[in-house]
Amino acid sequence: MDHQHGRLLLVGGTHGNERTAPWILQCRQAQPGLLASPLPTTTCIGNPEAYGANRRYMDRDLNRCFTEALLRDQSCTIREVIRARELVDAYGPGGRDPHRLVLDMHTTTAAMGSSVVTVGERPADLAWAALVHQAVGMPVYLFRINEDHPEECGFLVRRWPCGLVLEVGPVAQGIVAVGTVQKTTACLEGVLAVLGDCLTGKAKLPETMVVHRHLASLDWPRDRDGRQIACLHPDRPQWDWTPLHPGDPLFLMETGETVTYQGEETVWPVFCNEASYGEKGIALSLTKRDTMTPPAHGLEVLLGLLRP
Amino acid sequence: MDHQHGRLLLVGGTHGNERTAPWILQCRQAQPGLLASPLPTTTCIGNPEAYGANRRYMDRDLNRCFTEALLRDQSCTIREVIRARELVDAYGPGGRDPHRLVLDMHTTTAAMGSSVVTVGERPADLAWAALVHQAVGMPVYLFRINEDHPEECGFLVRRWPCGLVLEVGPVAQGIVAVGTVQKTTACLEGVLAVLGDCLTGKAKLPETMVVHRHLASLDWPRDRDGRQIACLHPDRPQWDWTPLHPGDPLFLMETGETVTYQGEETVWPVFCNEASYGEKGIALSLTKRDTMTPPAHGLEVLLGLLRP
Repeated sequence: MDHQHGRLLLVGGTHGNERTAPWILQCRQAQPGLLASPLPTTTCIGNPEAYGANRRYMDRDLNRCFTEALLRDQSCTIREVIRARELVDAYGPGGRDPHRLVLDMHTTTAAMGSSVVTVGERPADLAWAALVHQAVGMPVYLFRINEDHPEECGFLVRRWPCGLVLEVGPVAQGIVAVGTVQKTTACLEGVLAVLGDCLTGKAKLPETMVVHRHLASLDWPRDRDGRQIACLHPDRPQWDWTPLHPGDPLFLMETGETVTYQGEETVWPVFCNEASYGEKGIALSLTKRDTMTPPAHGLEVLLGLLRP
Repeated sequence: MDHQHGRLLLVGGTHGNERTAPWILQCRQAQPGLLASPLPTTTCIGNPEAYGANRRYMDRDLNRCFTEALLRDQSCTIREVIRARELVDAYGPGGRDPHRLVLDMHTTTAAMGSSVVTVGERPADLAWAALVHQAVGMPVYLFRINEDHPEECGFLVRRWPCGLVLEVGPVAQGIVAVGTVQKTTACLEGVLAVLGDCLTGKAKLPETMVVHRHLASLDWPRDRDGRQIACLHPDRPQWDWTPLHPGDPLFLMETGETVTYQGEETVWPVFCNEASYGEKGIALSLTKRDTMTPPAHGLEVLLGLLRP
């Protein structure tokens, strides 16, 4: 059956207080023809209960619930794990209504502009990211899966054969800000256009692409009670995507003291001051900027997933 | 006893996810001499439990809990009502450690810059606001108390003989953003300097001041299920403090349709897209811009409150 192939799942509201993507999906539903997709496309709210409550999640971050172990453990009744199972059973590649590609749309309070994130470095994800990067011009963040800490994994996109994350910021949680809507819409148009190019055989990988490989995350300096005792240093006009050299100002302590970056090589920070990451012990993430050749076989896999 | 007179209470974190003012108070504690006050000054976190949880409130907005009825009703065990009683019993004008003035420091996700808010139009509040307005140059919002809806009142500052609210935005909830810290610090310096001028007899009210009088609040257009079906119209470069004329674009509906402002006179919006106001049914508030003479007897009352 044709509908079992090459379908795209567009997800907004995986975090219930990130309201930009749900708003775009709502407008798309109200305006037939808006953001027309070149392939059969289903839209859904990732975490409707958290979205209703305007909270990131109810029991647990949904975007950490898609591990094999959690999905399999039927005794686990965490609301987000149940929801993850629902999504996989409904739209997963082996589900009732199977989809092969997924786009998970997020926002951040970090001043990152628009970016595309791959979780791990699967060839098809990299090829799709390269095409979107080429079409829309936004930076690519290659997030590294830490297999030693499966509880930190469990990302939604990993349950589909191919999936990307869009991140747009800065925007406060809980609001629909038109500028962020417009930036996210532009990215989504790029994603859809790229898939159209794939279907018509016009897609051509760029020879090289600039990527930002995840190296590590840094927590805020904290006192014995776990209280944050520093903020990002004000001497940098922009934090995200700009080089942080050894010895550069990093944190401004509550005492007024400056803490400099002690690493041995230049890094590029991302997700600086993401509001939800305080509880995860992340003040910012560090990446290494790199130029790579997008994998040609990744494009073949992607084209294969799009074919009926 | 000298300490019973002319004391200032500085409150941050009345809303637990507004982290700018608590951060400033934390730095002030770590750096003796920072933001030195000309009069005995106590600092406190308004809602420590919500601050610990990084939530606006636990049971109920603390800044709606200071009504006579709630404070008196000992059977009420709402956590924020208990906290309101604690604050009044400790630092209220008739409390164990009495204070006569209060400054309640907030942030908003609205792009309002810095502003000073009086809750109601008590002469001493107006005089203090006029002096701060003159010293720092920020707009003044005169919020109207609606005595018909006591549940909408219960603001912290009303429990002290004189009190102002600072609002600084835009900033996302849950983060310390240095730019917002700097803006709030500048306002706080202005507030303290003005009180110093009062103590040394140098304070002089401006002849006139521009104020924004609260007229009404508008909710988002909603569908039958209460779902927000419009965002602020993107055709205005700035929403807060800029005139909205009858017939101007107001909302952009999910359908793509524009809803224009139907009022009969020009208004000045404030608190446009404050994330926490969705649940209160407020998309934005409308004010009338007005030039007034600050009340001279308000300054006398203020000076009286500052004297031992």
